[in-house]
Amino acid sequence: MNPVLVDVLRGGAIESAHRGALAVLDADGGVVARLGDIDRPIFPRSAVKLLQALPLVASGAADALALSDAELALACASHGGEERHAQTAAGMLAKAGLDADALECGTHWPYNEVAARALAAHGQAPSALNNNCSGKHAGFLCLACALHGGKPDLRQYVRGYVGAEHPVMREVTAALQAATGYDLANTPRGTDGCSIPTFALPLRQLALAFARVGTGIGLSADHARAAQRLRAAVAAAPFMVAGSGRFDTRVMERLGARVLCKVGAEGVYCAALPERGLGVAIKIDDGNNARACEVVMAAVIEAFVALEDADAAFMRTLSEPPLTNWNGIEVGRLSAAAALRSLEVPR
Amino acid sequence: MNPVLVDVLRGGAIESAHRGALAVLDADGGVVARLGDIDRPIFPRSAVKLLQALPLVASGAADALALSDAELALACASHGGEERHAQTAAGMLAKAGLDADALECGTHWPYNEVAARALAAHGQAPSALNNNCSGKHAGFLCLACALHGGKPDLRQYVRGYVGAEHPVMREVTAALQAATGYDLANTPRGTDGCSIPTFALPLRQLALAFARVGTGIGLSADHARAAQRLRAAVAAAPFMVAGSGRFDTRVMERLGARVLCKVGAEGVYCAALPERGLGVAIKIDDGNNARACEVVMAAVIEAFVALEDADAAFMRTLSEPPLTNWNGIEVGRLSAAAALRSLEVPR
Repeated sequence: MNPVLVDVLRGGAIESAHRGALAVLDADGGVVARLGDIDRPIFPRSAVKLLQALPLVASGAADALALSDAELALACASHGGEERHAQTAAGMLAKAGLDADALECGTHWPYNEVAARALAAHGQAPSALNNNCSGKHAGFLCLACALHGGKPDLRQYVRGYVGAEHPVMREVTAALQAATGYDLANTPRGTDGCSIPTFALPLRQLALAFARVGTGIGLSADHARAAQRLRAAVAAAPFMVAGSGRFDTRVMERLGARVLCKVGAEGVYCAALPERGLGVAIKIDDGNNARACEVVMAAVIEAFVALEDADAAFMRTLSEPPLTNWNGIEVGRLSAAAALRSLEVPR
Repeated sequence: MNPVLVDVLRGGAIESAHRGALAVLDADGGVVARLGDIDRPIFPRSAVKLLQALPLVASGAADALALSDAELALACASHGGEERHAQTAAGMLAKAGLDADALECGTHWPYNEVAARALAAHGQAPSALNNNCSGKHAGFLCLACALHGGKPDLRQYVRGYVGAEHPVMREVTAALQAATGYDLANTPRGTDGCSIPTFALPLRQLALAFARVGTGIGLSADHARAAQRLRAAVAAAPFMVAGSGRFDTRVMERLGARVLCKVGAEGVYCAALPERGLGVAIKIDDGNNARACEVVMAAVIEAFVALEDADAAFMRTLSEPPLTNWNGIEVGRLSAAAALRSLEVPR
């Protein structure tokens, strides 16, 4: 039974609570902190987009197409579908000689409600460019360019790229397996929201992979360089990874390259803390990724990253956020639970 | 520790799970079925709007103002803020001699996304009429009319009606206490999303109250008549209680007066099953009311209501709903967990 990681308080009483598990590892596989079951395989969903983007850089595609920091950050993103996100994805596709028709992620209204209403106000409907995964998919298509080697019929080559057996996805899956050190052939496999495969992995292996991403230790030389390039891109363009008002964007705008964090669906969160040489992986049992995993990630950053007072105060607004109602009245708050606050943290 | 009530499956594996508690009682207080802790007080939030609307009818206000079924149903609603909802709330206020300026529920964009984008497309912003609680608040203001007794300065009288000590809210709280038989003066109190007080109550008492509402047993004569009137109104106008595509509306459009169900925030659900003489109360521990409590309520209806084959098949689509991704591919499903499916149900 995993412990309660987040309490939801109203009027001083606990209204709801979120259970979950948490792993913090170093790049040698040493467990620095843990709560709950870190060995049960869970679907990491979008939390591993940076690992899935390693071949984009390692293959030479990113350099060959002169992808910018913003474009590489978008390749690691679950973005809000805001205009800048959609335009950046379109730019990546153009560099690959493709367009939005090649995207196989599906279409949905922008997660960012202001952006969604702005589209509606202009009488427009969303396209696949607004899909929160459009940057990752544009990155896959840029990778496809390199794999196809400049031969004709790129459009035909990329068709079905979301399938597990397509050369693009085989490359992506191989990178995920290499970074995590986990046998993906023998673990449950599901289909993700954007139709690519998602493989179940233990939090232990996910945290290890992010420790490796933050340090380069345990990665191939190509992947180590790719990880460094992607980390720099995300730190330089944190808006692209998420968007207006979003946790990942706000934290990385504030802390820069000190934290690389990425949310996934169903309450998963992964992070690299490069200056500590640590990787972090979180899963909320109930799949809540609207509030619970953000509180946990904020508390972990508070515990493991040495923060100036102003940064500590900023992180506290994320680990103990007030809950306000439609009249702006503070009615309660979210709170990192006792198990999380009493983590033993080596100094 | 409450049991798992809902599993979230992806690719055949359990991706997430929701724990919670469930009480099914008869109107004499007999526990017919239970799972988990039904004696811990929880905030029922919007699940008790029908109980809070009892004084609107019992006071004579509903008759004096000639409120329609649609208007009475809206007084019990957490609606999607669609145009018909907003217009109906405006009509109730007009009957009371008031307008939207009197509403103290706050303003938010319609929960119904199509309605929200339609407003944006017309260059409009939402008003308090679009607040999901506007019907309940319009009902409070109609009740205020009766309490004020036709004297002048109604606008001044109603100011601050959301406060616990205002005569309107005292009447509403007294009805909640009478129906549930629970001492609200000595239980945790919070502030709800729409700024009225919310009192923590055990699931046992909530289920009892809904058994009483479905049968009239254990209520005062005035409240028993009011409950019957409100049940009839909701059965006649189920669109008003929730809205397009919503669980409460769909179930009551299908099953009519056989089920009266009402969702509340943070994973609470209450229902009356009048033909069985039973009341139901559910709380999902993690506060999920986007999916988990609907699956539980659907499974309870399947277990306790004798359904024709077509109705049973319909309910099964709600208790075992498929999960599809942005390309419409079925990637998994929600599922009523074993503890829920193995409930012992007296026949």
